[in-house]
Amino acid sequence: MTSAAGVSAPVTVLVFLDPAFEDGRLADASKPQLMATDQGATRGDGVFESLLAVGGQPRKLQAHLDRLAGSARLLELDIPVEDVWRRAIGTALSEYRGRPAPVPDALDPDGHAGDSADTPADEAVIKLFATRGVEGGDGPICWVQASRPSPAGRRQRETGLDVILLERGYDSEVGERAPWLLLGAKTLSYAVNMAALRYAHRQGADDVIFTSADGRVLEGPTSTVLLAHLETSDDGAGGVRTVRRLITPQQDSGILPGTSQGALFTAAKAAGWELGYGPLEPQDLLDADAVWLISSIRLLAPVNHIDGHEIGTRERRAQLTAELNALYATIG
Amino acid sequence: MTSAAGVSAPVTVLVFLDPAFEDGRLADASKPQLMATDQGATRGDGVFESLLAVGGQPRKLQAHLDRLAGSARLLELDIPVEDVWRRAIGTALSEYRGRPAPVPDALDPDGHAGDSADTPADEAVIKLFATRGVEGGDGPICWVQASRPSPAGRRQRETGLDVILLERGYDSEVGERAPWLLLGAKTLSYAVNMAALRYAHRQGADDVIFTSADGRVLEGPTSTVLLAHLETSDDGAGGVRTVRRLITPQQDSGILPGTSQGALFTAAKAAGWELGYGPLEPQDLLDADAVWLISSIRLLAPVNHIDGHEIGTRERRAQLTAELNALYATIG
Repeated sequence: MTSAAGVSAPVTVLVFLDPAFEDGRLADASKPQLMATDQGATRGDGVFESLLAVGGQPRKLQAHLDRLAGSARLLELDIPVEDVWRRAIGTALSEYRGRPAPVPDALDPDGHAGDSADTPADEAVIKLFATRGVEGGDGPICWVQASRPSPAGRRQRETGLDVILLERGYDSEVGERAPWLLLGAKTLSYAVNMAALRYAHRQGADDVIFTSADGRVLEGPTSTVLLAHLETSDDGAGGVRTVRRLITPQQDSGILPGTSQGALFTAAKAAGWELGYGPLEPQDLLDADAVWLISSIRLLAPVNHIDGHEIGTRERRAQLTAELNALYATIG
Repeated sequence: MTSAAGVSAPVTVLVFLDPAFEDGRLADASKPQLMATDQGATRGDGVFESLLAVGGQPRKLQAHLDRLAGSARLLELDIPVEDVWRRAIGTALSEYRGRPAPVPDALDPDGHAGDSADTPADEAVIKLFATRGVEGGDGPICWVQASRPSPAGRRQRETGLDVILLERGYDSEVGERAPWLLLGAKTLSYAVNMAALRYAHRQGADDVIFTSADGRVLEGPTSTVLLAHLETSDDGAGGVRTVRRLITPQQDSGILPGTSQGALFTAAKAAGWELGYGPLEPQDLLDADAVWLISSIRLLAPVNHIDGHEIGTRERRAQLTAELNALYATIG
């Protein structure tokens, strides 16, 4: 399929985990491949992961496979072992990279390149899905999808985000006492996350940070919250010492453990940052030198404003973002 | 497909809403019909309804179509008008009823009839689905499914349920102030509802009544809560007057408005019952003469025990259930 402008349609590759195909079963993404009675579709009953592959190499794959297995355990979904996923991901990436790259758009009248040129041809979004399958059927349906990153994510990490705070409705302790709420699982039931993003867009904002009923900072609908505080103090020898601290909400507050936040924390610690875990309140965000929403595809997206209040200064945000981006680039 | 026992496989009919087919497009339910990239499947981003058809006539169809439209509005899903749904439902029911009825199982050694005989051949479960469709695609994907009711529902309304109370995590006022939580919409994001039911089954219970963070009775994962109180008082002429009151949690507490509860309330009022709307607390359930979970397919399922406490007496429950079932049978 080729559009009027001569651009190839986005390439999407599907590979189903199927015992009859050792490396997964390639399926045509332009045709229906799911049963309409699959409980993933009829009840959002399943789990997923999204990760980035660069140059054919999935990033933080082990962390994503671990989290997928953890989500599946919380939902009592019996999914294939890690190695089966790895082989299917390999098949999806080979197929994806073997397909002809999209033809770049011509420059538009303002001299900007079109969508295709915004996305490095060698990046792929890998999604892993496991649904409960058809009721009374043979069990979970699992597949891997490879597709092009959207240019919107890259734009947002360059220009930054305006964010609003929205209540998530839960208090920060309910996840511990009510496991049936699945707060630690990345389920397919994302309707609320999507509705919160639409609500933000209607308010002219780009994204959301959820807060708990007891006033704690939680997470974004598709990201982890991260903030930086710089503190200068006397170094005891007449000079000034700067402590750089990277902070994220505490992990037991009913939020999803962030794979990107986890990897960045490891790299930041090695580079001399101090690390901290909430509880955080909205005022902590407003007082920060920089705030980011971090996720596997969009990576570190700096937050310019929260509810209209500027976070730090443009220069400070840019400087800290560049520094953390450099650290993040060292992650395997 | 015929099983070894000579029983036909469950019949499922699918009809997609499709502008090219005035009465809907019949599709083979034994083959994949959904795109793996449909946001209904990947994010639980869509809405649905379940209703019963008896003798080819959908029950409370207008109430279900109204609620579907309301859910779609909350999700900003632009779905076809009512008449398009009605025609597709008509097609699904004609096709469903035109197929050969399953061959009843032989009597088992105890003299009980098998599954097929448990389900009146002339009943059908009708489900209406609308998903957001493929990202960047042509908009919502909508379909109607007709299938056999499960015999479990009929058993439960005859034998009653043991129920546990589980916290839903939300306070009873958050729905009003946080519309992005979609509490009044029947979305495809049902993973928590399903997890709560699995949790109950592991505890040896059949079903769940959710409570709010502020201790109010909310709803079941797939049903509305209803209770009856009988009060006797002096009639002022030396005799005794019995007031029969039917109560359900208040509608603005973040629960789904129940179509069956609504219809039953109308019929009960005409039959002399007094009606009440919460706030209800768990103690109100324990003090009731009878409690039911009511829904469109399972209908009125009496609750025998809540967290191990018997509700009323067996005789009183049976008598009130019979009375309300007779009323419910008068509903169109």
